[in-house]
Amino acid sequence: MSEGRLKLIAGNAHPELAKAISEHMGVPLCDASVGRFPDGEIDIKIHDDVRGTDCFVLQPTCPPVNENWVELLLLIDCLRRASADRITAVMPYYGYARKDRKDEGRVPISAKVVANSLTGAGADRVLCLDMHAPQIQGFFDVPVDHLYAKPVMLKAIRQLQVVDPVIVTPDVGGTKMARSYARALGVEDLAIVDKTRKSGSEISVHNVIGEVDGRNVILVDDMISTGGSISEAAKILRTRGAKRIVLCVSHAVFCGPAVERLDTCPADVILVTDSIPRRGASPHQLSVVSIAPLIGNAITNIHQGKSVSSLFD
Amino acid sequence: MSEGRLKLIAGNAHPELAKAISEHMGVPLCDASVGRFPDGEIDIKIHDDVRGTDCFVLQPTCPPVNENWVELLLLIDCLRRASADRITAVMPYYGYARKDRKDEGRVPISAKVVANSLTGAGADRVLCLDMHAPQIQGFFDVPVDHLYAKPVMLKAIRQLQVVDPVIVTPDVGGTKMARSYARALGVEDLAIVDKTRKSGSEISVHNVIGEVDGRNVILVDDMISTGGSISEAAKILRTRGAKRIVLCVSHAVFCGPAVERLDTCPADVILVTDSIPRRGASPHQLSVVSIAPLIGNAITNIHQGKSVSSLFD
Amino acid sequence: MSEGRLKLIAGNAHPELAKAISEHMGVPLCDASVGRFPDGEIDIKIHDDVRGTDCFVLQPTCPPVNENWVELLLLIDCLRRASADRITAVMPYYGYARKDRKDEGRVPISAKVVANSLTGAGADRVLCLDMHAPQIQGFFDVPVDHLYAKPVMLKAIRQLQVVDPVIVTPDVGGTKMARSYARALGVEDLAIVDKTRKSGSEISVHNVIGEVDGRNVILVDDMISTGGSISEAAKILRTRGAKRIVLCVSHAVFCGPAVERLDTCPADVILVTDSIPRRGASPHQLSVVSIAPLIGNAITNIHQGKSVSSLFD
Amino acid sequence: MSEGRLKLIAGNAHPELAKAISEHMGVPLCDASVGRFPDGEIDIKIHDDVRGTDCFVLQPTCPPVNENWVELLLLIDCLRRASADRITAVMPYYGYARKDRKDEGRVPISAKVVANSLTGAGADRVLCLDMHAPQIQGFFDVPVDHLYAKPVMLKAIRQLQVVDPVIVTPDVGGTKMARSYARALGVEDLAIVDKTRKSGSEISVHNVIGEVDGRNVILVDDMISTGGSISEAAKILRTRGAKRIVLCVSHAVFCGPAVERLDTCPADVILVTDSIPRRGASPHQLSVVSIAPLIGNAITNIHQGKSVSSLFD
Amino acid sequence: MSEGRLKLIAGNAHPELAKAISEHMGVPLCDASVGRFPDGEIDIKIHDDVRGTDCFVLQPTCPPVNENWVELLLLIDCLRRASADRITAVMPYYGYARKDRKDEGRVPISAKVVANSLTGAGADRVLCLDMHAPQIQGFFDVPVDHLYAKPVMLKAIRQLQVVDPVIVTPDVGGTKMARSYARALGVEDLAIVDKTRKSGSEISVHNVIGEVDGRNVILVDDMISTGGSISEAAKILRTRGAKRIVLCVSHAVFCGPAVERLDTCPADVILVTDSIPRRGASPHQLSVVSIAPLIGNAITNIHQGKSVSSLFD
Amino acid sequence: MSEGRLKLIAGNAHPELAKAISEHMGVPLCDASVGRFPDGEIDIKIHDDVRGTDCFVLQPTCPPVNENWVELLLLIDCLRRASADRITAVMPYYGYARKDRKDEGRVPISAKVVANSLTGAGADRVLCLDMHAPQIQGFFDVPVDHLYAKPVMLKAIRQLQVVDPVIVTPDVGGTKMARSYARALGVEDLAIVDKTRKSGSEISVHNVIGEVDGRNVILVDDMISTGGSISEAAKILRTRGAKRIVLCVSHAVFCGPAVERLDTCPADVILVTDSIPRRGASPHQLSVVSIAPLIGNAITNIHQGKSVSSLFD
Repeated sequence: MSEGRLKLIAGNAHPELAKAISEHMGVPLCDASVGRFPDGEIDIKIHDDVRGTDCFVLQPTCPPVNENWVELLLLIDCLRRASADRITAVMPYYGYARKDRKDEGRVPISAKVVANSLTGAGADRVLCLDMHAPQIQGFFDVPVDHLYAKPVMLKAIRQLQVVDPVIVTPDVGGTKMARSYARALGVEDLAIVDKTRKSGSEISVHNVIGEVDGRNVILVDDMISTGGSISEAAKILRTRGAKRIVLCVSHAVFCGPAVERLDTCPADVILVTDSIPRRGASPHQLSVVSIAPLIGNAITNIHQGKSVSSLFD
Repeated sequence: MSEGRLKLIAGNAHPELAKAISEHMGVPLCDASVGRFPDGEIDIKIHDDVRGTDCFVLQPTCPPVNENWVELLLLIDCLRRASADRITAVMPYYGYARKDRKDEGRVPISAKVVANSLTGAGADRVLCLDMHAPQIQGFFDVPVDHLYAKPVMLKAIRQLQVVDPVIVTPDVGGTKMARSYARALGVEDLAIVDKTRKSGSEISVHNVIGEVDGRNVILVDDMISTGGSISEAAKILRTRGAKRIVLCVSHAVFCGPAVERLDTCPADVILVTDSIPRRGASPHQLSVVSIAPLIGNAITNIHQGKSVSSLFD
Repeated sequence: MSEGRLKLIAGNAHPELAKAISEHMGVPLCDASVGRFPDGEIDIKIHDDVRGTDCFVLQPTCPPVNENWVELLLLIDCLRRASADRITAVMPYYGYARKDRKDEGRVPISAKVVANSLTGAGADRVLCLDMHAPQIQGFFDVPVDHLYAKPVMLKAIRQLQVVDPVIVTPDVGGTKMARSYARALGVEDLAIVDKTRKSGSEISVHNVIGEVDGRNVILVDDMISTGGSISEAAKILRTRGAKRIVLCVSHAVFCGPAVERLDTCPADVILVTDSIPRRGASPHQLSVVSIAPLIGNAITNIHQGKSVSSLFD
Repeated sequence: MSEGRLKLIAGNAHPELAKAISEHMGVPLCDASVGRFPDGEIDIKIHDDVRGTDCFVLQPTCPPVNENWVELLLLIDCLRRASADRITAVMPYYGYARKDRKDEGRVPISAKVVANSLTGAGADRVLCLDMHAPQIQGFFDVPVDHLYAKPVMLKAIRQLQVVDPVIVTPDVGGTKMARSYARALGVEDLAIVDKTRKSGSEISVHNVIGEVDGRNVILVDDMISTGGSISEAAKILRTRGAKRIVLCVSHAVFCGPAVERLDTCPADVILVTDSIPRRGASPHQLSVVSIAPLIGNAITNIHQGKSVSSLFD
Repeated sequence: MSEGRLKLIAGNAHPELAKAISEHMGVPLCDASVGRFPDGEIDIKIHDDVRGTDCFVLQPTCPPVNENWVELLLLIDCLRRASADRITAVMPYYGYARKDRKDEGRVPISAKVVANSLTGAGADRVLCLDMHAPQIQGFFDVPVDHLYAKPVMLKAIRQLQVVDPVIVTPDVGGTKMARSYARALGVEDLAIVDKTRKSGSEISVHNVIGEVDGRNVILVDDMISTGGSISEAAKILRTRGAKRIVLCVSHAVFCGPAVERLDTCPADVILVTDSIPRRGASPHQLSVVSIAPLIGNAITNIHQGKSVSSLFD
Repeated sequence: MSEGRLKLIAGNAHPELAKAISEHMGVPLCDASVGRFPDGEIDIKIHDDVRGTDCFVLQPTCPPVNENWVELLLLIDCLRRASADRITAVMPYYGYARKDRKDEGRVPISAKVVANSLTGAGADRVLCLDMHAPQIQGFFDVPVDHLYAKPVMLKAIRQLQVVDPVIVTPDVGGTKMARSYARALGVEDLAIVDKTRKSGSEISVHNVIGEVDGRNVILVDDMISTGGSISEAAKILRTRGAKRIVLCVSHAVFCGPAVERLDTCPADVILVTDSIPRRGASPHQLSVVSIAPLIGNAITNIHQGKSVSSLFD
């Protein structure tokens, strides 16, 4: 690999992940300053020459989402005007992914605004991981490589040696993801916690569809935000007789009361990836698996013109 | 309403629905020829003047989907070049909606190709009904009004007087739609037929999650294509003790062996809308409700600058 | 030539031509499935990796024109999203080329809709042959390489040893093409069959301008659709005393009554290219020359960055 | 008509025509300065308020073509930024229309560059007259209204009382236009002067196809540039026995030796329109008919949302 | 004025200014919620129907600039998808305006990223006030109405009765603005404080060009950020013998140590507009003039299709 | 450097500069004809093959600005359609750069029309020198490399051995450029000639701010057009006691009375670059330094993917 032409550029969203990807690949991070002017405007200067290079901007748009999004836009514009040959936005977490449709009148489709702004600034490609809705790929006309945390999660699950589990989704919308995990683990039984989300953060759990009594449970979801939904689901499952409860979630947003709710919920293990940086305290059950090798390998394959989907064969 | 400036133009996809919408609105269809040259190329001539008018092209992209799609494109181009003031593609059925993401490497996102081609030809807006994935709204940068068949379906369901039903989805992906029908009908109980789709048309039904024994069932889905999945679901439900079985499906594509499969499946009633024209035989249980009034009212509101979402309050 | 990075992808429009091009070039066709779902929607899966490759999609948009056009669009989208480096639409026959202008009010310019949809789906370049109107090149902002069948046709004509011919066009619009053939053959005399096309398929032949009595005739045109115009021209020419009559036509669309009309017309030889697949019976006078070597050479030159116009020096 | 909202803006290309259109319509020209800075840069200031108005920029792109083209672009940009509601480029002569295709390698399609620059500057529509190739309509995605000088020319021809004429085209490319005039005049006989254009200005006339001996001739073409081709055609026709020779040409570019050539050629009458301003001497046979009323009526109809094609019924 | 079709929508950037504009115009603010989800993502819902209306989004992109910018984008997307007829971004302060060029290698042109994102989200027009560089108008292809605070500032200055002042700019880049104020006040004398900006916030003042000894001074600039530059200028001017010192600045960003620096600098009066909300303490010399009437009048004129530049005659 | 793939193409704007760049680089100019048809339309034919090459079009848009601008557009279109790999517009002088904003109502932003037309025709990048406003970089979304004549000018100035100079700008807008020269020359003292431009060419000089009596003066500006402003400035400076006066100006447009005004003004030396060709007489003080090596080096670095800003370190 002629890595001299491959550049890794990191914003401030997740320096730890950027460092891990860089170390996995053996490619140093580009020398760049991404700071703030006194009035809060973002101040960017890339010190390395990037003309004619293949640039990957490592920047999940996790909280603070608007700051990280704008940093990403300005980095892309900077690279384009510095004559980078190709610019890939590497977003292991895609902020606003849940605003992917008009579910009522007079709301934005924020995930499309993100997409338009990225290509308007000059992104040539996008690399994502476990997007809330895979349809967001279709918000773009540029290629989107979509990675799955499943292989690294499965490896971690298998090490937990959960006996004869039932796979459960905390939300009717997550049944497909649960199905996919079940198949990969050779598990037959599914269950669904049927809740109604009454507002942005209030949850009202209704019912468990399927059998969980006396069973070990792997509760699968794509993300934890305030943790209300999934901690309520864990409680209900325990009430219905579930034994060991393993939470398996790709994106650990952990905002508001999330850490406290999770820390006190009946989950025995909380498996998450490092797609989002951990700040402050963590729930005691937390176990983090790194997606840095996966992303590093994907970047290498993209740079070398090799298949990305082959990483999941 | 200054209806002199509102024009309804129909392609060949569904003349019966176009006629019903026109009659409901009291607005005649525009005088237009949409034929074929001997080599199969589409031959369009609009006879009425449309300069400065507000045009609605009535054309679901149901089978023959490619013919209907291209007719729609050419009608839009024709209207644009004839100086129509505004062009709305009215697509009560949106073909290729199931190809809304890359679920594996090296497949197209056909629903995005549809979207790009429509706006590239000159569509200013789109009017749809029960799209397979609501995220397709985000494939567009022009406004998309998304209608729901639910109100007309609910009215028909209530007339069937199904006692104490359980709402069932034949597919994990349809749980949200089932939830929405359940809530509107004041029903608590949901069940899910958990199947794996092994290829484009072969179905392998696995399991029923939730209780259906001794219960009346309303089996809800957005579309019936070959009918394999839903007829298998109906059989499984009867095996598991379901009593009366009512199928409630928005889009009756009915291709391949669909009519035979449905005709012989244990469903007692098959409720569908007229979003797609009926050609040939129908299953004996079929009951069709018309969405022409709903679409007509939406067109009127769009033309007059009134809220469309208010039609569902 | 690093042919590992050159990919030939064929849709269903003309598998024989795709095979001939592939064999001429010594480059195998890409492993791809282009099928239909039961409802008629196109189902595409490319099995070879195409990331970073130079892709040529072999797909004339001959009848069934709308099916072939949509296949082409979806193949292009598929390649773009699979990160192909460059995508060339190879269209030896460009459907809808005759709808290249508004010759009356309220008709589409369908050939422009084709152009917009191709670049909207992601085509980077186009390769055509004997387009009905060369101005269609200007419908695109991407490069269009326009090939001429003339060299291969001339070779075949010369083998026929037509003595002292007059070159005739069956339509006033074709006089330039006739002039071009005359010059290449060293022929001075031209004649024009002056007809009025009363509708899409009905023809009314008027007159022959120029001398044909006692002469051998080469009747040149770019395409035969229903064959009405050219078979009438042949009859008139015979009536006016023409001796041997050779038809020389690039695109053999042959729809409707074309085969019967041609079979019974006074033409002695009907020279056509294989830009369009032959299905069913053929007129007994038919002689087909292959443009596969020409297209193969053009693809090779495009891939290697060599001049295409030099193929015609 | 609320003509307060209709604005006519004229550049320097053809003030006489602008004045004639304005007087025909009874709508004064907008108060605007279109001058030059000392270094030759165009200096534009529109003095009337144009916010929210329907603007028509009267500017044929005749010689000096590049100056007139750029004036048109800057006027359009000026109007767009001044918040005009709609901007129509009124180009009774479309410069560079003959560069409408790549007829050899490595030449521009200049007519497409004109089209792209107009819409890039903000033109919402275009109004043209007798474009060299009607396919140029397809170079645009905005509506193009294409007017024909034929009705006003026919009226002038009829006043000339040419007895039993034959319609002749000086170029194989003009046969369709000749056919159209013949039909409108109820004439059966056509003839073609078959020439080869050896370079931009040198002409080599070959032959006359069809009968002209002892006949009155109407020689029809879309434009006269240096006049070489048509004056040679007139000479040949006289040599072949033509009696009265009437030239009927839409656009009188008259550059280089055109006036002298025409003045001394055997044509008896030279009918042209005023689409291009007359500067300097004119050939003694010249007779000019005005297209100002036609353009004025088209502008009125466009402004009022009435059919333009109806002007030709 | 049919104000029923005019809608004022306010984000969270500056509610006080929005209220003042609304009251000046007598048009109520649209009922809309612009909040935050627990993870910091923006949550927008517009409660009033806006279909077919003329919407003005009142949102200066002052600090917190990235939050305000993204709010503006999502509001525009929301209005576009809700079928607003026209959307104007009203930005009395345009964040990132100082990043308007590449003054060194490998920096972004952030002001262009702002522009692209606004039109990409659906803004039809922009309304600004005293932009740092007027060239930013050219970053847009949509109309930009540029207002000047000068008339309201001049009125306030005249009330201060500054005797025989000299107009001073604290930066070589501001000389044109100083010239413009001098002319409007009938003042002949200019002076320039010549400084070098060593980094984003550090200032090094060099020199005063022109005479200020014994003179009253009006120190004019477009914005105060950290206040370092202008407070240093005031000190230097006092050192050089300036008597009364009036600061006259359009945009009071006031970040970091600005309030303390200004409070202790020798300026006697600090005149600013309310383009940016005041949070926390203010310097004791502060005097605020409102631009709400000016913006309200501009909105009214835009809505009614009247000239905006006439507001400054 | 694989210079076989680098192509230099020159229009008619400045053949001497093109030749000098070509000779400096050791890369021959591409064989191309850029002429005129008899009616003034531009006639372009590139004789060398350019498929897959890296093309640099050498064409400052100096007077005749509109001719040169259109030549540049058509050359770019020609190269794009001839399948050039990358096209860079090399514009050492950017015409219309002074029309970079709306400084009053109803004027165009001509510099943006230039920018839009270039990218609309197919330019992938732009290379400029000392643009009147650096913000014009933001008129583009493609990369713009901005060169400075300063290094070559400084070298020439140092050879003049001007003792203890003061740097003067003839216009308040040029103070930044003067500051930059002062810093590079280690000069402390600045002065400003404060004039008001009353119209396009009339000048009214007011005042000198700063000390020039008894000093040597270097009068710095970006361009000389009619020379009125700078010759008046020189006169005023001499009146105020300036000794030696050196004019240092990047772009010598020299139109109208410029040569006479400069020839008779008190400047001792007039240093300019060869960004614009010299036609006719020159002022006797003229000294021209060539920017050909600078541009040649920049082209080489762009072609080889090396930093351009490093040329100024």
